[in-house]
Amino acid sequence: DEIRAYARGVVEREIAKHAADGLGMVDYALASAGAMVVKHSETYLASGKRANWFSKSNIGGVHHNANKMLTPSFGEPGQCFPLKGSAGFVEIRLRVAIIPEAITLEHVAKSVAYDRSSAPKDCRVSGWLQGEDTELGVDAAKRFLLTEFTYDLEKTNAQTYYVVDSPASGLIDTVRLDFTSNHGSPSHTCIYRLRVHGREPDSVSVKAVNGHEPSSLPGSISMKALQR
Amino acid sequence: DEIRAYARGVVEREIAKHAADGLGMVDYALASAGAMVVKHSETYLASGKRANWFSKSNIGGVHHNANKMLTPSFGEPGQCFPLKGSAGFVEIRLRVAIIPEAITLEHVAKSVAYDRSSAPKDCRVSGWLQGEDTELGVDAAKRFLLTEFTYDLEKTNAQTYYVVDSPASGLIDTVRLDFTSNHGSPSHTCIYRLRVHGREPDSVSVKAVNGHEPSSLPGSISMKALQR
Amino acid sequence: DEIRAYARGVVEREIAKHAADGLGMVDYALASAGAMVVKHSETYLASGKRANWFSKSNIGGVHHNANKMLTPSFGEPGQCFPLKGSAGFVEIRLRVAIIPEAITLEHVAKSVAYDRSSAPKDCRVSGWLQGEDTELGVDAAKRFLLTEFTYDLEKTNAQTYYVVDSPASGLIDTVRLDFTSNHGSPSHTCIYRLRVHGREPDSVSVKAVNGHEPSSLPGSISMKALQR
Ligand SMILES: [K+]
Ligand SMILES: [K+]
Ligand SMILES: [K+]
Repeated sequence: DEIRAYARGVVEREIAKHAADGLGMVDYALASAGAMVVKHSETYLASGKRANWFSKSNIGGVHHNANKMLTPSFGEPGQCFPLKGSAGFVEIRLRVAIIPEAITLEHVAKSVAYDRSSAPKDCRVSGWLQGEDTELGVDAAKRFLLTEFTYDLEKTNAQTYYVVDSPASGLIDTVRLDFTSNHGSPSHTCIYRLRVHGREPDSVSVKAVNGHEPSSLPGSISMKALQR
Repeated sequence: DEIRAYARGVVEREIAKHAADGLGMVDYALASAGAMVVKHSETYLASGKRANWFSKSNIGGVHHNANKMLTPSFGEPGQCFPLKGSAGFVEIRLRVAIIPEAITLEHVAKSVAYDRSSAPKDCRVSGWLQGEDTELGVDAAKRFLLTEFTYDLEKTNAQTYYVVDSPASGLIDTVRLDFTSNHGSPSHTCIYRLRVHGREPDSVSVKAVNGHEPSSLPGSISMKALQR
Repeated sequence: DEIRAYARGVVEREIAKHAADGLGMVDYALASAGAMVVKHSETYLASGKRANWFSKSNIGGVHHNANKMLTPSFGEPGQCFPLKGSAGFVEIRLRVAIIPEAITLEHVAKSVAYDRSSAPKDCRVSGWLQGEDTELGVDAAKRFLLTEFTYDLEKTNAQTYYVVDSPASGLIDTVRLDFTSNHGSPSHTCIYRLRVHGREPDSVSVKAVNGHEPSSLPGSISMKALQR
């Protein structure tokens, strides 16, 4: 009976974790919560007649589908954003400014994948506080390395890496993923999903980013989310 | 061996329940099955330039995104519909007329939520048979209290409440959720999902609602669903 | 302790399988990966005023919603494509040419279904290599029966049937599902999802289908997927 109760407990906890976005960790880079891709290296495009359509669909250099990197994949192959070549980058504006704690990079599960050579391999993630000044660049000195890692095809498909370094201020509102290699594809690298975990500062006087209310206002909904 | 078989059985049953919309209970308020929001209190809007866009997106006073309350959330924060303030209401036309048995109110899981103070707290759900006469109001005497409850942030995020009272006829095709408080947000209250459980009457002569076939015709598909 | 480790192992494996599209088997008929419905029998339509809208939404005789049959249903009733009557067919162009191994037919789970009499019953699946020549028909002699089966309402809702016969060449890029009966609905039959499992040939010289790169190029993304 004790064992049965134990088994039932394990099952319920693991299913709850699975149901809670797979990890049960808050993600500040989630598109539906107001995060967005603000910059990325060249996308991978099939050549041909749709190029014209494609160019119109870019807004400020960000492909209209780039936010696929910030949405759940639900185990489906193809629910990713493809970048050209085996090296590239993506910059993401978070929902609000946070003190970063971990990064999760997810690719498609081995059991349903056609091929996983497009998975990123050697990666580094940096972060900084951009604030309202989105037009100008940020002094490189103010960018902090959060973590460096190698995505491992043999491990579980959503891999979490803890932050090793933090900005002095503690706060970031933008992260950048640079990948310098992938798992073999010469043509492109697919990013299924990048999540950024951390905690919001306690102070209620934090300046909002992205036109959101300060993070102390509960569950603020972005207009972006409302439009969907 | 017996214990192993037991453990395997528990796992399979619990995963099947999770895969079956989380609860394994039929939901007559599901948007993809023809249910729809027909009325709601004022939505929560950020002030500013998009207001004009917003007003155009309303159809008959119902926001184009209101059906988010009638669709699965898949553990994603932000997959809700925000109503202004800490009190408000929503009225839902069911897929077909049913004898109501239970109501489920779902908010986002604690482990992935930014903040849960926008969750509804004190709630009451009433129901009635509106029939074809959607233009005129329904005599208040014909509305029945189905259940009153307090949504509890410490329990599992999808909470089911059984119906305590039923209309004399047994049948309802419309429900109304009134919430009189939330868990602390002064600005808005988010409804992730409301489900209505029950059973269809046995008779094949039941009058259809919403222009659907009578419920006795199997698996009727609404045009709404077909358009998606 | 051994038993606890066993229980935990079972839970983790079963949840991983569930998270991997429910079966943990590669599906070459997945819409987001480039597969598409190329032909189907008449759809089931409610009569009336929306017929005009409807006719415009057909492209080359294929309803704009037909690909619902090639996308995950996530346990939601209504996430299917309805065909008229109790007999009909659908033809699907696969993502790439494969050596077929199994077919999975999925309907909605019993626990959340309003009615399951619209489920297909007696089915046969055939396959062939259409190649680039999409305009002309394929010699019937070149079509191979892959499997015949009866969808069973009492079993788990996603049912996998192994291929009994294979084309001499080994390769197919198109499959056809014919259903000759359903579980009782006189008006229509709903297809929630059809999956086609198998393996890609080893050779790197395989001719691509659907304008995709050869399957040896890893993780090729269709323009179709990019447009979503
Ligand atoms: K994704
Ligand atoms: K929802
Ligand atoms: K489907």
